Amino acid sequence: MRAQSALDGLVEALRRLPGVGVKSASRMAFHLLQHDREGALRLARALQEAAESVRHCARCHTFTLDEICETCLDPRRDASRLCVVETPADQSAMERTAAFQGQYFVLMGRISPLDGWGPNDIGIQKLRERANEPSVREVILATNFTAEGEATAHVLSEALKREGLTITRLARGVPIGSELEYVDLGTIAHALADRRSA
Amino acid sequence: MRAQSALDGLVEALRRLPGVGVKSASRMAFHLLQHDREGALRLARALQEAAESVRHCARCHTFTLDEICETCLDPRRDASRLCVVETPADQSAMERTAAFQGQYFVLMGRISPLDGWGPNDIGIQKLRERANEPSVREVILATNFTAEGEATAHVLSEALKREGLTITRLARGVPIGSELEYVDLGTIAHALADRRSA
Repeated sequence: MRAQSALDGLVEALRRLPGVGVKSASRMAFHLLQHDREGALRLARALQEAAESVRHCARCHTFTLDEICETCLDPRRDASRLCVVETPADQSAMERTAAFQGQYFVLMGRISPLDGWGPNDIGIQKLRERANEPSVREVILATNFTAEGEATAHVLSEALKREGLTITRLARGVPIGSELEYVDLGTIAHALADRRSA
Repeated sequence: MRAQSALDGLVEALRRLPGVGVKSASRMAFHLLQHDREGALRLARALQEAAESVRHCARCHTFTLDEICETCLDPRRDASRLCVVETPADQSAMERTAAFQGQYFVLMGRISPLDGWGPNDIGIQKLRERANEPSVREVILATNFTAEGEATAHVLSEALKREGLTITRLARGVPIGSELEYVDLGTIAHALADRRSA
């Protein structure tokens, strides 16, 4: 059954994607082979190119093709503010707001004892060195507002404390466009505690 | 932003997978690049190999690497029974039951007017020729029990009618291991109508 083994190999390889079980993988393989072979080959090329060429910025750890990423090299970025995010996707979300002109440090994960992820796995020593550079006046902790993200922010705020460095966290509150009736109570409670003058 | 474009290219290529939106695609790309580059390269190879070598059996339309698939060539299979399924995954499910020793015809789809899929897209002419081979005594319609699968079975049963050919459909009924309380009413109604002597 050679065809079966080529198919099984594809299904097996697709199953390694996060969130993809055997049924989804079979459906994906069928779709690609039956309706989109060009897409299959394009995905193959994109995977190979990315896997072989993408590495981590020596300064902020985000994905880059170079030694230092373009954001770190950009002289127009405000070197006094350092925003700490969990992943390049989070960094990308921050960038899309166009509300932050500083620099980044990307943890490439979060502290998660259940997954065996400790402070060293998020490059805490490197972050400390980075935050201790004299130009840095503020570290903005923009880890996620999940239990793990909050724990990570807590550990980092303790680890980074030093004279003259302000450590901040993104505001918690009611999301834009939402109705209080449908917002979870913890969020409302936080928004109340952090209320601001109108 | 060359790294960004390699990443964006990967996310874009992953989005072409069925059921994968931009968030899932980003998560997949991050996972592969951060935790499983070997898996990324393996997937790239599997995709390329499958896309370039898998084709359709000239006789039953299923995926194969050869002109005719192994099942069609197997002389031990019962040539008098032809089972019609929608996809190779359905064929594989039938095979795993070990309850069917006949041959197959794989539609590689279903009739679905909303998607612009008509009788010609499921190879109905080829199926008619196949079902008209003198060795075939029974065609078992094993399309899915969805609206589209039922419609496909209906169209096929009309199209394949001929003297001396039995056309059957898989039984509808209560799934093994299920409790009536949790079975949908349509299924119970069908199971009642098709009840058999105990």
